[in-house]
Amino acid sequence: MRQSWSPITRCVPKVIATATLAIDSSGSSFTEITPEVVRFVTESGAKDGALFLFVRHTSASLVIQENADPDVRSDLANALDRIAPANAAWVHDSEGPDDMPAHVKTMLTGVSLHVPVIGGALALGTWQGIYIAEHRARPHRREIVLQFMGSTL
Amino acid sequence: MRQSWSPITRCVPKVIATATLAIDSSGSSFTEITPEVVRFVTESGAKDGALFLFVRHTSASLVIQENADPDVRSDLANALDRIAPANAAWVHDSEGPDDMPAHVKTMLTGVSLHVPVIGGALALGTWQGIYIAEHRARPHRREIVLQFMGSTL
Amino acid sequence: MRQSWSPITRCVPKVIATATLAIDSSGSSFTEITPEVVRFVTESGAKDGALFLFVRHTSASLVIQENADPDVRSDLANALDRIAPANAAWVHDSEGPDDMPAHVKTMLTGVSLHVPVIGGALALGTWQGIYIAEHRARPHRREIVLQFMGSTL
Repeated sequence: MRQSWSPITRCVPKVIATATLAIDSSGSSFTEITPEVVRFVTESGAKDGALFLFVRHTSASLVIQENADPDVRSDLANALDRIAPANAAWVHDSEGPDDMPAHVKTMLTGVSLHVPVIGGALALGTWQGIYIAEHRARPHRREIVLQFMGSTL
Repeated sequence: MRQSWSPITRCVPKVIATATLAIDSSGSSFTEITPEVVRFVTESGAKDGALFLFVRHTSASLVIQENADPDVRSDLANALDRIAPANAAWVHDSEGPDDMPAHVKTMLTGVSLHVPVIGGALALGTWQGIYIAEHRARPHRREIVLQFMGSTL
Repeated sequence: MRQSWSPITRCVPKVIATATLAIDSSGSSFTEITPEVVRFVTESGAKDGALFLFVRHTSASLVIQENADPDVRSDLANALDRIAPANAAWVHDSEGPDDMPAHVKTMLTGVSLHVPVIGGALALGTWQGIYIAEHRARPHRREIVLQFMGSTL
């Protein structure tokens, strides 16, 4: 396996900055929040460290995925629909046919992730965007806790 | 997209507290560990920061999901069974028909996550509980490493 | 639920060490990077804390899974192929039949994870290895950002 390393850089962790973002999702959608995350990193005075994201729900999740062709998000949503179809024989159906599939999709895609911050910028790849995935059919208000741990500018 | 932000709060990271929890799982089950995690956060003297959880296994995973109707956990387990059925033609079957499905379920749901800690409390949503998901058919002893990084009370 | 706790150990977070590993993947494969991660932890002078891994791509992911029988990785790959088959009717197909399945597999397995570091060693379980999963059919150069937060030796 051919490989190469960058040099190791070091800094002293000086701050943990925390804020909560509340957004109104559209039903069954991937909403990009990269600009909001960048704004938080900037306003935190972040230099080097990591940015942590956590969504406080059981039917919406956090996904890092392609930010170019919107067809990718449609296909991702369709793939999740095939894995957890609304018409499967769910026992828990008191909250509507979209509720239990939304829990399954959230379990599979996750509510917690981090992105490195290097020199004040998110170290996302060229094609990576950060999305909140709403898995319920109707819009919901969703809360995301953002935290930066690291050094400051 | 309508959105609102809380103010950014800041603290200095003062401690990393680490402990390992060993629990005996039931076979094929979601066992809630939120009270144990709360206890660790309290005993660590945690104020603001993040709590990290890591399970040291390849056939059990960590899931944050609904803590109200137990039917939700049954449906989640059934959904995982449909994705990775015991009777699929697995090449790796020397450890029993439930072993390879357990690896697939662990890969899809994950062994690593974090939860923000704000003012000494886990910032879980109203309906979120933390579960260890046992994917093997029989009970196992499972180890979870808990770590708090942040400020102290 | 029978359970037992280790004592809580505490340290002061002194450093965040960051480096980027670029590796040439084989097509559709799980490549173990545990030795590389261990090397980074050692060269960082890490003592107690956590190691964070992030892959900067949307068609490759990070997976912690069994490091013994290689059949396990074949079965994991086959399970992902069944979830996201190349011959499904993907809308986004301009980058080849393996591209959209690779995005789905990446979404389900994730690009971000952490492993605790205790006494200078990764607190992996006996059977856990860290893998970069290449989901495209052909080899690609992939970048992984490694970060250690914690105390130093």
